[in-house]
Amino acid sequence: MGLSLKVRDMATRLTVEIAYDVPRVEEKLLAKAASMQNFTVKLTNVRQTPLTLEKIAADVTLVRCVSMYAAIHTAAMRESVGVKAINSTKTILYAGDKVLTVSCLHASGIAVPRIAVGLDAEAAEKALEKVGLPAVDKPPIGSWGRLVAFVKDYEDFKLVREHREMIPTSYMKTHLIQEYIDLPNRDIRTLVIGDEVVGAMYRYRPSDDWRTNVALGGQPVSAYLNEELKEISLKAAEAIGGGVVSVDVFETETGSYLVNEVNGVPEFKGLMQAIGVDIPGKIIEYAYKAARR
Amino acid sequence: MGLSLKVRDMATRLTVEIAYDVPRVEEKLLAKAASMQNFTVKLTNVRQTPLTLEKIAADVTLVRCVSMYAAIHTAAMRESVGVKAINSTKTILYAGDKVLTVSCLHASGIAVPRIAVGLDAEAAEKALEKVGLPAVDKPPIGSWGRLVAFVKDYEDFKLVREHREMIPTSYMKTHLIQEYIDLPNRDIRTLVIGDEVVGAMYRYRPSDDWRTNVALGGQPVSAYLNEELKEISLKAAEAIGGGVVSVDVFETETGSYLVNEVNGVPEFKGLMQAIGVDIPGKIIEYAYKAARR
Amino acid sequence: MGLSLKVRDMATRLTVEIAYDVPRVEEKLLAKAASMQNFTVKLTNVRQTPLTLEKIAADVTLVRCVSMYAAIHTAAMRESVGVKAINSTKTILYAGDKVLTVSCLHASGIAVPRIAVGLDAEAAEKALEKVGLPAVDKPPIGSWGRLVAFVKDYEDFKLVREHREMIPTSYMKTHLIQEYIDLPNRDIRTLVIGDEVVGAMYRYRPSDDWRTNVALGGQPVSAYLNEELKEISLKAAEAIGGGVVSVDVFETETGSYLVNEVNGVPEFKGLMQAIGVDIPGKIIEYAYKAARR
Amino acid sequence: MGLSLKVRDMATRLTVEIAYDVPRVEEKLLAKAASMQNFTVKLTNVRQTPLTLEKIAADVTLVRCVSMYAAIHTAAMRESVGVKAINSTKTILYAGDKVLTVSCLHASGIAVPRIAVGLDAEAAEKALEKVGLPAVDKPPIGSWGRLVAFVKDYEDFKLVREHREMIPTSYMKTHLIQEYIDLPNRDIRTLVIGDEVVGAMYRYRPSDDWRTNVALGGQPVSAYLNEELKEISLKAAEAIGGGVVSVDVFETETGSYLVNEVNGVPEFKGLMQAIGVDIPGKIIEYAYKAARR
Repeated sequence: MGLSLKVRDMATRLTVEIAYDVPRVEEKLLAKAASMQNFTVKLTNVRQTPLTLEKIAADVTLVRCVSMYAAIHTAAMRESVGVKAINSTKTILYAGDKVLTVSCLHASGIAVPRIAVGLDAEAAEKALEKVGLPAVDKPPIGSWGRLVAFVKDYEDFKLVREHREMIPTSYMKTHLIQEYIDLPNRDIRTLVIGDEVVGAMYRYRPSDDWRTNVALGGQPVSAYLNEELKEISLKAAEAIGGGVVSVDVFETETGSYLVNEVNGVPEFKGLMQAIGVDIPGKIIEYAYKAARR
Repeated sequence: MGLSLKVRDMATRLTVEIAYDVPRVEEKLLAKAASMQNFTVKLTNVRQTPLTLEKIAADVTLVRCVSMYAAIHTAAMRESVGVKAINSTKTILYAGDKVLTVSCLHASGIAVPRIAVGLDAEAAEKALEKVGLPAVDKPPIGSWGRLVAFVKDYEDFKLVREHREMIPTSYMKTHLIQEYIDLPNRDIRTLVIGDEVVGAMYRYRPSDDWRTNVALGGQPVSAYLNEELKEISLKAAEAIGGGVVSVDVFETETGSYLVNEVNGVPEFKGLMQAIGVDIPGKIIEYAYKAARR
Repeated sequence: MGLSLKVRDMATRLTVEIAYDVPRVEEKLLAKAASMQNFTVKLTNVRQTPLTLEKIAADVTLVRCVSMYAAIHTAAMRESVGVKAINSTKTILYAGDKVLTVSCLHASGIAVPRIAVGLDAEAAEKALEKVGLPAVDKPPIGSWGRLVAFVKDYEDFKLVREHREMIPTSYMKTHLIQEYIDLPNRDIRTLVIGDEVVGAMYRYRPSDDWRTNVALGGQPVSAYLNEELKEISLKAAEAIGGGVVSVDVFETETGSYLVNEVNGVPEFKGLMQAIGVDIPGKIIEYAYKAARR
Repeated sequence: MGLSLKVRDMATRLTVEIAYDVPRVEEKLLAKAASMQNFTVKLTNVRQTPLTLEKIAADVTLVRCVSMYAAIHTAAMRESVGVKAINSTKTILYAGDKVLTVSCLHASGIAVPRIAVGLDAEAAEKALEKVGLPAVDKPPIGSWGRLVAFVKDYEDFKLVREHREMIPTSYMKTHLIQEYIDLPNRDIRTLVIGDEVVGAMYRYRPSDDWRTNVALGGQPVSAYLNEELKEISLKAAEAIGGGVVSVDVFETETGSYLVNEVNGVPEFKGLMQAIGVDIPGKIIEYAYKAARR
């Protein structure tokens, strides 16, 4: 990389904007990596900064907002003035809504768990009949496994349905019912940056929750990245618009893979520790190439 | 059309699905028009029908759900199994979020009112300073002018901001601040079907509201569809993904046009009465062609 | 009653106001009974009628609003101008909040199921430990069994807790955890009018829900009103402020009774059919006496 | 007080529980004052501690929860096991709901601003007509002036009404419309402890808000406590159930007083600084006497 950096210096010094709402360690690592790669770094707290249709002094914006709508609106406003957004509005939109994700994946021929979508309580009940018990009932939007419910019987479903009806957000009416995959106590998360899969890890289910989300206590462990996993990850990333995304994968009893979800504003601290790869550096390199295109 | 219909009969009898949640007169008119044009009509109440990844017996789906998320999820689930959705997921997504709409329009070089977006209360206050008073403060998502607030002074803004913070839906944190255009008591709405603009109407502001929405009492009156209006309407429709959309246009003091919003699941009863055009018939013709492509 | 009515005619013709929001059959029956007993009837839709501090032409107000806050505010505004409210603000307040009810009942020495109250998620978890599994988790405010959850294991509790945290109403933070009483598939509901218990019925659990609420399919059947049931009903009614209330009672294995809840704006249609008593007539008589006091 | 303390020591050492959710400086001052007066102090974080029907080792509970429902439920659960709550459930309930407060005050013959209550949007509009413009539109429940709106014209009212309808909490449907009193840029707050009024202060309106709440920038300044102010404060406190309450008073042009609101879990830091009185000490003395009764 030493040479390319020198070439870059002589050629064009670009400005990368890191747009955030709640700064995490990932954003700090990205800023540091960008400085080291001779980018000019512009930090924007979108909670304090209005977004306008005026040109801004940046070539590329890393959209790192925790709030999904903040991420979508930041990407869109930057793209509207010709700034490359990573990820693109499209990727953040499609990865941010699990129904959109699964429909893109299926349309692209990628294997996904069996699902049915109910757009209201009555349809959800029929969706559950289609998928069968036990199942998982997810709202289309939400992070860290929140409100993702394990439905082992009809009583569980009634409980979820009744509570969901009291949550006044309209997208909460949509129930994504998914077959329950009896994982070997873990799922797999890979990270895709452009056309490269940089690593994979297992997330082991904690003792006190059926979900594997690290936010809920899931344990990250480095995983071997075989060709099939690489291929399915790249295809999944491409299906929802590409960029820098993490891909959640289930293993089935027959040894094949199913793509569960894709994350359009991925956290990567856990993976970085698990696999020892300079992920921020790789993201910044990708951003540089993308901005030059 | 007589000939084309006969040709069609001999060739392929297609099935159109009309997907709805709250049936309005528009959906009935569409079903009738489809029957008359020799389509097989399949009515789907998405509140009662689960959506799956199995093939369905339809060539094209008219997505007519009042709920924006129901519309998005219906379009996506149909597209995932190879059914043409009118409108496409993309169009419904981008027209359904006013920040996405305006960013697409601006990126396509279409003139829009001056705006600034605040992704939280503090940023919204600065966005208001950028745009200046009086202004309009809109949430990104919402129909029929709901929660679109006229902000004539700083007290008005504080009132809006404080109430918005109590609405627990996360996208309500985003304030789209737009310059107030002192219309001649009206705005213009055009309807685009594919690459044709089928008509235009004025919506006159009612005496007891500053908004022109028909749902709030705005009066629809036929308007002359000049070339400039046609061109801006087609460009706006194309910018957000095309299909069947209505376009809201402001006239400025200098005689030019600004595109305000685009509606991706348009009501058209008012326009039909104002201009005397068979809009349902035209939508069905468009659906036929689109399904054949 | 013939004689008393004649006496009443000669003496004072009183005006009864029936205050409602969503009119049910009960309100119509009350209006009819009041007319027959020579009351002047004044119907007030509180959704359309402002309540002020001016005197009103009524001697007594039957507060029949379905919305708990509408009922409380109507009672309070009427009492503020010297009109007798049935029920009183106090009764509606204390019966409307299950934590207040149980605390009044216990303070009055009435047997209730074992409970513990958690004012936030963490406290609720400890409250569940105190009560033990299986348990019932209720929000303090709510009708028709809504959001009353059967918690058979810790997974159920996590599901309830997580969903409750997404419901933005502040009283939803309070979890009333109650021991699960393994009823003989039914509970008992009695109706108290002043110092009389007018009847009792069993509500049998429907096949598809663990709750006995009639709104959820519970079957009402006439029950024998023994002395112990009478006494506990009257004491419960008095404990929360008296008036016209229904009392929900559990039978225990040892044959004793526990008071579960009290309803301060009782529906009585089911009971009327089950026991064949003129409940509206009795309520109006009570109102007459109360207004004369 | 030296003597009384000694007497107390010899007699009974009591335990005071300070129940809180978000600890503020007031709670620390109360704990310190209680220790100095030889109370045993028991601090209870109600967010972490379940409340049960078992006896607790306390003679009196100072209910200091910021959350209104936490305060109500704590007071009720303590009273249910025979512990004196300061304030009582009744006082916290009636002071916590502005409609209940004003109805109690009016019933007790205390002068209040002209008001009308609308229990839904339509009734609220008529309530506004009764009161006239300009007016103040308040939800019944809420602290620190939040959502208290100044309605100078009909446009303002529509804005408030429309936003309120989007807030899913049911009591938000109630609009308490109150005449706008053109204060001399201030209101008066007094603090009542039992049958003593311990002080008064002006709260001056900040430059950027029409409200005087200290949380919104209102400036506290010591005020002279005349006999009329004392009398009206004591009557207001008694009307809503007594205890330790602050009373908000408006001055009218004619020199008379109107009671605006009463606070049942009063903050007193500002007043303490303004008037130099040992308020925590006085509250603890009151608690001691109340517990001994």
